[in-house]
Amino acid sequence: MSEKLKIAVIGGGSSYTPELIEGIILNHAQLPVSEIWLVDIPAGQHKLEIVGSLAKRMVEKSGLPMTVHLTMNRREALEGAVFVSTQMRVGLLEARIWDETIPLKYGVIGQETTGPGGMMKALRTIPVLLDICKDMEELCPEAWLLNFTNPAGMVTEAINKYSKIKSIGLCNSPTGVYKWLSALFEVPVERIYAEFVGLNHLNWVTKVSVDGDSKLEKLFDLKEGYSAKNVPQSEWNADFIHGLGAIPSYYLKYFYLTQEMLQDQMASSKKEGTRAEVVKRLEDELFELYKDPNLAEKPKQLEKRGGTYYSEAAVNLMKSLYNDSRDIQTLNVANGHTLDFLPHDACIEVNCVVTKQGPIPLPVSYVPVSVKGLIHAVKTYEQLAIEAAVHGDRSLALQALGHHPLVPSVNIADRMLKEMLEQNKAFLPQFAEA
Amino acid sequence: MSEKLKIAVIGGGSSYTPELIEGIILNHAQLPVSEIWLVDIPAGQHKLEIVGSLAKRMVEKSGLPMTVHLTMNRREALEGAVFVSTQMRVGLLEARIWDETIPLKYGVIGQETTGPGGMMKALRTIPVLLDICKDMEELCPEAWLLNFTNPAGMVTEAINKYSKIKSIGLCNSPTGVYKWLSALFEVPVERIYAEFVGLNHLNWVTKVSVDGDSKLEKLFDLKEGYSAKNVPQSEWNADFIHGLGAIPSYYLKYFYLTQEMLQDQMASSKKEGTRAEVVKRLEDELFELYKDPNLAEKPKQLEKRGGTYYSEAAVNLMKSLYNDSRDIQTLNVANGHTLDFLPHDACIEVNCVVTKQGPIPLPVSYVPVSVKGLIHAVKTYEQLAIEAAVHGDRSLALQALGHHPLVPSVNIADRMLKEMLEQNKAFLPQFAEA
Amino acid sequence: MSEKLKIAVIGGGSSYTPELIEGIILNHAQLPVSEIWLVDIPAGQHKLEIVGSLAKRMVEKSGLPMTVHLTMNRREALEGAVFVSTQMRVGLLEARIWDETIPLKYGVIGQETTGPGGMMKALRTIPVLLDICKDMEELCPEAWLLNFTNPAGMVTEAINKYSKIKSIGLCNSPTGVYKWLSALFEVPVERIYAEFVGLNHLNWVTKVSVDGDSKLEKLFDLKEGYSAKNVPQSEWNADFIHGLGAIPSYYLKYFYLTQEMLQDQMASSKKEGTRAEVVKRLEDELFELYKDPNLAEKPKQLEKRGGTYYSEAAVNLMKSLYNDSRDIQTLNVANGHTLDFLPHDACIEVNCVVTKQGPIPLPVSYVPVSVKGLIHAVKTYEQLAIEAAVHGDRSLALQALGHHPLVPSVNIADRMLKEMLEQNKAFLPQFAEA
Amino acid sequence: MSEKLKIAVIGGGSSYTPELIEGIILNHAQLPVSEIWLVDIPAGQHKLEIVGSLAKRMVEKSGLPMTVHLTMNRREALEGAVFVSTQMRVGLLEARIWDETIPLKYGVIGQETTGPGGMMKALRTIPVLLDICKDMEELCPEAWLLNFTNPAGMVTEAINKYSKIKSIGLCNSPTGVYKWLSALFEVPVERIYAEFVGLNHLNWVTKVSVDGDSKLEKLFDLKEGYSAKNVPQSEWNADFIHGLGAIPSYYLKYFYLTQEMLQDQMASSKKEGTRAEVVKRLEDELFELYKDPNLAEKPKQLEKRGGTYYSEAAVNLMKSLYNDSRDIQTLNVANGHTLDFLPHDACIEVNCVVTKQGPIPLPVSYVPVSVKGLIHAVKTYEQLAIEAAVHGDRSLALQALGHHPLVPSVNIADRMLKEMLEQNKAFLPQFAEA
Repeated sequence: MSEKLKIAVIGGGSSYTPELIEGIILNHAQLPVSEIWLVDIPAGQHKLEIVGSLAKRMVEKSGLPMTVHLTMNRREALEGAVFVSTQMRVGLLEARIWDETIPLKYGVIGQETTGPGGMMKALRTIPVLLDICKDMEELCPEAWLLNFTNPAGMVTEAINKYSKIKSIGLCNSPTGVYKWLSALFEVPVERIYAEFVGLNHLNWVTKVSVDGDSKLEKLFDLKEGYSAKNVPQSEWNADFIHGLGAIPSYYLKYFYLTQEMLQDQMASSKKEGTRAEVVKRLEDELFELYKDPNLAEKPKQLEKRGGTYYSEAAVNLMKSLYNDSRDIQTLNVANGHTLDFLPHDACIEVNCVVTKQGPIPLPVSYVPVSVKGLIHAVKTYEQLAIEAAVHGDRSLALQALGHHPLVPSVNIADRMLKEMLEQNKAFLPQFAEA
Repeated sequence: MSEKLKIAVIGGGSSYTPELIEGIILNHAQLPVSEIWLVDIPAGQHKLEIVGSLAKRMVEKSGLPMTVHLTMNRREALEGAVFVSTQMRVGLLEARIWDETIPLKYGVIGQETTGPGGMMKALRTIPVLLDICKDMEELCPEAWLLNFTNPAGMVTEAINKYSKIKSIGLCNSPTGVYKWLSALFEVPVERIYAEFVGLNHLNWVTKVSVDGDSKLEKLFDLKEGYSAKNVPQSEWNADFIHGLGAIPSYYLKYFYLTQEMLQDQMASSKKEGTRAEVVKRLEDELFELYKDPNLAEKPKQLEKRGGTYYSEAAVNLMKSLYNDSRDIQTLNVANGHTLDFLPHDACIEVNCVVTKQGPIPLPVSYVPVSVKGLIHAVKTYEQLAIEAAVHGDRSLALQALGHHPLVPSVNIADRMLKEMLEQNKAFLPQFAEA
Repeated sequence: MSEKLKIAVIGGGSSYTPELIEGIILNHAQLPVSEIWLVDIPAGQHKLEIVGSLAKRMVEKSGLPMTVHLTMNRREALEGAVFVSTQMRVGLLEARIWDETIPLKYGVIGQETTGPGGMMKALRTIPVLLDICKDMEELCPEAWLLNFTNPAGMVTEAINKYSKIKSIGLCNSPTGVYKWLSALFEVPVERIYAEFVGLNHLNWVTKVSVDGDSKLEKLFDLKEGYSAKNVPQSEWNADFIHGLGAIPSYYLKYFYLTQEMLQDQMASSKKEGTRAEVVKRLEDELFELYKDPNLAEKPKQLEKRGGTYYSEAAVNLMKSLYNDSRDIQTLNVANGHTLDFLPHDACIEVNCVVTKQGPIPLPVSYVPVSVKGLIHAVKTYEQLAIEAAVHGDRSLALQALGHHPLVPSVNIADRMLKEMLEQNKAFLPQFAEA
Repeated sequence: MSEKLKIAVIGGGSSYTPELIEGIILNHAQLPVSEIWLVDIPAGQHKLEIVGSLAKRMVEKSGLPMTVHLTMNRREALEGAVFVSTQMRVGLLEARIWDETIPLKYGVIGQETTGPGGMMKALRTIPVLLDICKDMEELCPEAWLLNFTNPAGMVTEAINKYSKIKSIGLCNSPTGVYKWLSALFEVPVERIYAEFVGLNHLNWVTKVSVDGDSKLEKLFDLKEGYSAKNVPQSEWNADFIHGLGAIPSYYLKYFYLTQEMLQDQMASSKKEGTRAEVVKRLEDELFELYKDPNLAEKPKQLEKRGGTYYSEAAVNLMKSLYNDSRDIQTLNVANGHTLDFLPHDACIEVNCVVTKQGPIPLPVSYVPVSVKGLIHAVKTYEQLAIEAAVHGDRSLALQALGHHPLVPSVNIADRMLKEMLEQNKAFLPQFAEA
């Protein structure tokens, strides 16, 4: 066990950081962090200073033997780190606006984690993450990379394929599902077992038990399922959910209710702007709060941001890796034999036992016949998009888009891709070279 | 070898029958058919008599020792048959009109072999075919069932799963591809090798060689691929085809150019009616010709009908099964290990060696990454629809539709299904019972 | 949670029972057993009374609210049980003597859990266990069957294939390995992680870590590995173990050192009789001790018996199932996708997470190339022997023996089988019928 | 099609060459060979001259436009070749004597294609073949390598893994099985279909039909199966064969009748020397005959040699590759998905359709449960031995031997390996380096 427990947070200037700091403080007994390094790029320096100062105040107030460091020098932050967490956004919220608006012009869902928007985010993000991994191979080769950067599944798969760094993809939504079930059944989370099947942002809960008794049928009858700030409500078709025999993630509304979601997006983009624009306003408000020199705790308002439970997921994972806890968490890892119709190196989101040597994916009890094709269709797109991102290959990007279930024509894919590549040019050096 | 070589043709009153008769006459040396039994239902009696009389005149003219029998008694036709061929249409062309028009009302492709229309055809057809198989198990348990009835892949899979009868699904389109390549490269078909990957009406040619030399690149550069009467032309995106690295079947236009095809369908259904209506006019003309007592050969006009090469495919298959020829044909058979991401009992369309004991599917050299997801998505729909058809299960039918790549919303699927089930009620006794 | 927590112990008259009682007493806080039913057959009544009286004295001394019941009526014992444990021996120690001596006459290893002897034990035992399961399906369909009866892997596989009862196979040797490692590295068992690969009595430890650090290389250099009373010592070849890259179970000496073990067996059977005879003497001594009305605890001498840790394994498993503990235990369960070269329903011995809904096998990090063939060869024998046992099929029994790696000729197999079937006739009614 | 059809024969001085020349002459119409290059090493020059002169006389007598070339310069022979055939023996018959005698000293089967002897042959041969392939990659990269050199399966697998050359392993025994069946059922080979499952020298015939009718049951009742000169007769156990449900290759006697075969070997090695010594005497006699300047045809006596049908297998394969015949032949090729329990790159012996682009393995109808373990056990040994051969790794060689089903102890394996490595030192440069 190394004496120094150093954590590096890439994209440390993010509005999420106070939540992470809070989590680290609350769990110090089991995860005795000694140094937190918040690193950001020059464009994010201003925000880093604001949020970093808040972080320092929080730590100081806690009285714990832990230091907070702010830096623009990524290598300094990585050196000797035990955990590296990433929460940055290449191209900032502006690029997210492009991801959400350009597809709409072509009559296609605009979303930053799947479809055309998700692919553009992957093209921008994957090379940057691989670059971080290259530094890590040199400066902290044994560190764990906890990746929250969306599209988290694709980014994790890319790292597993093109780097030696041990990486785990994380999403707040499984934690959210557990919280929702806990409130619903009025039992602590520990007495619930939920089985997740699928990919990041494309999963189904196929089993829910409380003290070993199945509760799935009860959930089917609920009018309102678990949802999230960043995905607008649209009621599920009850007959369909019963027939499905599983609880779909709220992200699946993009696939099961494509037409309704598209109309929602078009309407709300006129009224209140895209989700990116809403978030931008929220973030501005948050940073105003963070600036308050008397604030030394995570403000309540952060919970509106959409990313609740991110830090809880992160801290739980670090704790279990550090302590060899062997508890079960839902993570994004290499498939192995879990889903027998996908390649072994495909990244999936699945229950894992977290040991000191890393997460071990648990076999799934069953996969509903209904969902195999959709999982495979989206994984096909993901595999193609990852290769496109790494090699800067437009032809592969067209294959990825042309085979995405949300894209209604190869010709539309082609025209849309042209505009998106042009718009994102500054963040896609690998395509310029090619 | 049984002395009597009896063939039973279910749906013998079809306008295709003269082509089949011609094929049998031309190949008598290698396939010494002694009896042809054309069987139809009372509603088809009139057509059976017209086309049956023509068949008799054709055989008489040939001078071969072969008899033609017309009957409404299916069991009489099946008894002792060596080959049974099916070419019937449950609900006749009228039901096809429903398959092609109802979906259009919901903004969805209307097509009789895939999507909502294809599913309805499967729901109508599968129980009838299983009923024929039950008779065969009693009356000719060793006979081969050559199934042309669309959706041929789904029907064949249903028979393999729910009957002991040896069944092979057949489509004319691989034969058409070979003819096209033969004309293009100016070499006989025997010198060409084409590898097919996928499902019935959802396949890709991933390998084309002439005398062992690859010709695939040349085909990518062609403006016009192989197409068919029943699928309107819509040009492929050249960049996309190059990136794909395979020649998609013209049926894939429904998936790759969904939006364009939908617009085509809407426009042409206004102008000239659906394809079903066009076919109905063609058939009426054909039957007028067939009535001519001086006609003793297949009339040229039949070639416009859309099903060219059907009889060639059928006769070639019977010849190879009968003679243990061990030649390679593209057929619809159980997957086995061929596509490792699909179940062993999934019906796929693939090159097979045809032995006396049946076709053996050949392993495919490779499957382009791009197409795996789409194949799996459509097979998922097919599996669900087959179970819906066999068990008369509306919930499974909704799962099938809701997961079909051409259906843009589960809610639309639900409303459309309601109308289609109502419209098809007379041909769906299994749903009434449930 | 049922109020009454009833445990039925089939073969309750076994000399192991006091250990089990002790385990139940010590763990009462987490496993609040209310009734223990010890059941045996008439031939075992005398032993049941002796050991049952001791059990009652032990419980009384503990002061816990728990009753001990002795019965010859299996159905009474099973009714409403939550856990059923089996530890009986069909044919008693006398049949074990046959298993150990007849093969030796043919120059073949004589052992009661593998090879010809193991097969005979399986033929005698499997039908009796299936009969118990039939009763359970009626009287306690939701109970867990914890099976210790050897050959535990084969028996568990047979139950999984031919019964609806949830069954888990248990062996004391993984517990023993953990104890050994704990003593060796001087750390508590909780800080050790060992990965087991293989079948019951045919496994390898491929990974050992303490606090996440690998210790495997250190173990290779040890002169003495973990061994057991019932398998005589024979030193491993150090070069071979290094090349293997895994720690073989001591049972693997029968396969890796066949010739040496055979000579050992022949020599010691002359000197001190077979292991069965040694055990018989030990048991007689134990029962003498048990009779002492002043004895109210497990006597020390039981530890010589060879089955140490059995009760620990049993109580740990019951505790985890009862409390949904989700800890990792090494158990015999259906393979699923764990070993990709074996059928899904093959029983393997592997690390599992134990939930309230049963054990979930963990994927293995890797399987050394060297051992795959041997695992598959022994599993082939097991599959054939299970079918032979269930159907009373001599031809399958010959296939099983003729394909067992320890049998040097099909002709020898045939002659040996003849003698063994004859000798065991009284315990093989299924073969008489056939 | 290249105008010049050049064949290079490595080990051209072999006594088999006249048979190959005869085959080429007889099939000239379909395989218009223009040049035959016989190449050998200096140690074989004398034999090359004798057999080469006979070959020239044979070709001259045929009057065909074909030249025969003798050379010690392998590169000259390979340049521009279309087919390369290998039939050499590294270490000559003397090394075979070691393979057959050293194991016997340790009480282990001595055989040149499996067990310890087979492994030594693999260790000597694989590096030489890989060296030939390196030359081919430079001088005739598109040529087909037809490999007859034993152990043919292992050598072919090594080439597929470590070279880009297209290689096919060939054995005469499937041809022999067809000839035997043809004589037995009195029908031409074309009307028979036999399905082979397994590895080179470890296969089973699981299906035999004549005109589509199964004949397997009839074969089980035969007293005498198909056998070969180089494997002494030892009668099969009829009950065992019935239970097996397949016809084992005569090489399987080493595995199913190990003890009897070992005794045979020991007895006959005393009486008439090893098989190698018998062959040596036969070869000396043959070369005496070959010297006769009036001899211009293959002498009858060659048939005693043990390798009958080798040239027939070779010429048939070349013809089919050359003409894209798409007929079915039993060959040693990469497994792919054929046997689902073996790796994709494992070399197996299986029916293939031979196209111009190479052989395509046919899926097998079924694999008897009984044989899977043995196939996997021997393949495990093969995989380990191939790596040992390529890397000169003694530790892997010990793993290979220690896991071979014919080796009764790891300690014996260790001692035997020591002696064999020492004896073969001159032919194992890769082990000296290590």
